[in-house]
Amino acid sequence: MPTVKRDTYTPDSLLSVAVRVFNERGYDGTSMEHLSKAAGISKSSIYHHVKGKEELLRRAISRALDSLFAVLEEQLAREGRAVERLEHVARRTVEVLIAELPYVTLLLRVRGNTDTEVWAMSRRREFDQRVAALVKQAAADGDLRSDVDARLATRLLFGMINSIAEWYRPDRAPGNGAGGGTSAEVAEAVVRTAFAGLRTH
Amino acid sequence: MPTVKRDTYTPDSLLSVAVRVFNERGYDGTSMEHLSKAAGISKSSIYHHVKGKEELLRRAISRALDSLFAVLEEQLAREGRAVERLEHVARRTVEVLIAELPYVTLLLRVRGNTDTEVWAMSRRREFDQRVAALVKQAAADGDLRSDVDARLATRLLFGMINSIAEWYRPDRAPGNGAGGGTSAEVAEAVVRTAFAGLRTH
Repeated sequence: MPTVKRDTYTPDSLLSVAVRVFNERGYDGTSMEHLSKAAGISKSSIYHHVKGKEELLRRAISRALDSLFAVLEEQLAREGRAVERLEHVARRTVEVLIAELPYVTLLLRVRGNTDTEVWAMSRRREFDQRVAALVKQAAADGDLRSDVDARLATRLLFGMINSIAEWYRPDRAPGNGAGGGTSAEVAEAVVRTAFAGLRTH
Repeated sequence: MPTVKRDTYTPDSLLSVAVRVFNERGYDGTSMEHLSKAAGISKSSIYHHVKGKEELLRRAISRALDSLFAVLEEQLAREGRAVERLEHVARRTVEVLIAELPYVTLLLRVRGNTDTEVWAMSRRREFDQRVAALVKQAAADGDLRSDVDARLATRLLFGMINSIAEWYRPDRAPGNGAGGGTSAEVAEAVVRTAFAGLRTH
C-alpha cells in the first residue's frame, strides 16, 4: 500500500512535485495516478487544488514564461545599444533558466497538441521574435558580424543557452566544470563564447 | 482495415521508417503495432527482418555513432594544431548531424534503461571525452581563451551543435534563415560564432 500523507500542500509545493514528475515521465506519460503517488496524497486531494494535470502544466509553464519575459522588461534589456541589450538578455536568460531549472526544462520540452502546449509554443515564439529583433538591430548597428545570418545567429545562441537545461545539475559543486558552476559563471561563459568566441585573437 | 503492402523492405528502408516513428512517438511510446502500421506490413513481416524494436534502435543509433566517430578519424581531425582539429570536428559534426538528421536526433534523445540505450549513452560520453581532450589541448596550446573552463566550453559548443537537431528542416530552402541553410552554411556559422564570436571586434 502506498503511504498516504495528510495533504499539507500549498499550490506551489504541489506544483513543484508535478513538474518533477512531468520532466521524468514526459507530460503525456504522466497520469493523475502518477501525480498522486509522487505527492503521497489521494487523487481527490489533488483535485481539491487543481482541475487536472493540464492546469498544473499551465501554471508551471506560466512561471517559466513570466520569468523569461520579465528579463525583456529589465532596464538593461530596454536601454542602450542593441548588442549590449542582447548580451544582457542572454546572460539573464541563462540565470533564469538555472534559477527556474525544472520549470524552464518543462517549457523547452513542450511539443504537444493540448491548448496549453499550443499556447506555450506561441509564447516561446513571441520571446524568440523579440530576441531576433534585438539581433537584427545589433547587426544593423554594425556590432554583429555580417557573415552569419541574424536568424541563424539567434537560433545558435539560444540553442547553446537552452542546452544548459540538459546537463546543468544544481547539486554539483560550483567550479566543477562537469556539472555546474554558479549561474553567474555559466552565464558569463555563454556571453564570452557566443559574443567574443573561444579562440584567442 | 489498414492497407497491408507486400513486404518489399530492405533493412535500410525499414530502419528509416522505424526511426521516423521513434522520433515522433518516442522510443518507449512506440510498439511493434505502431511500426507495423507505419510500414504498412504485418508484424510478422517485421520480425522477418529484425528480432524486435530494440534491434531497430541499436541499428539506428549505430549508424549515427559510426558517422560521428568517423569524423574523429579524418586526417584534419588527427593532424595539426588542436584548435584547428577542434574546429574541423565541430564543422564536420554539424554536417553529419544534418546528413543523418533522424538518426542523430534519435541518438541525442536517448535517455532510457534498455541495454541499447545504456550502451548508446556510454558511446556518447566517449565521443564527448575525445572532444574534451582536444579542447584541453587547444587551451594548453594557448589557442583558447583561458577564462572559460574547458569542460564548460565543450558543453556549450556541443549544446549549440546538438540544438540544430531541434530546428533544422531539410525541406526549407537554403539561405532561408528560418529553417535552413545548407549544411556547410550552418557548419560555417557554428564555427564563426563559437570560435570567433558574434560581435565585431
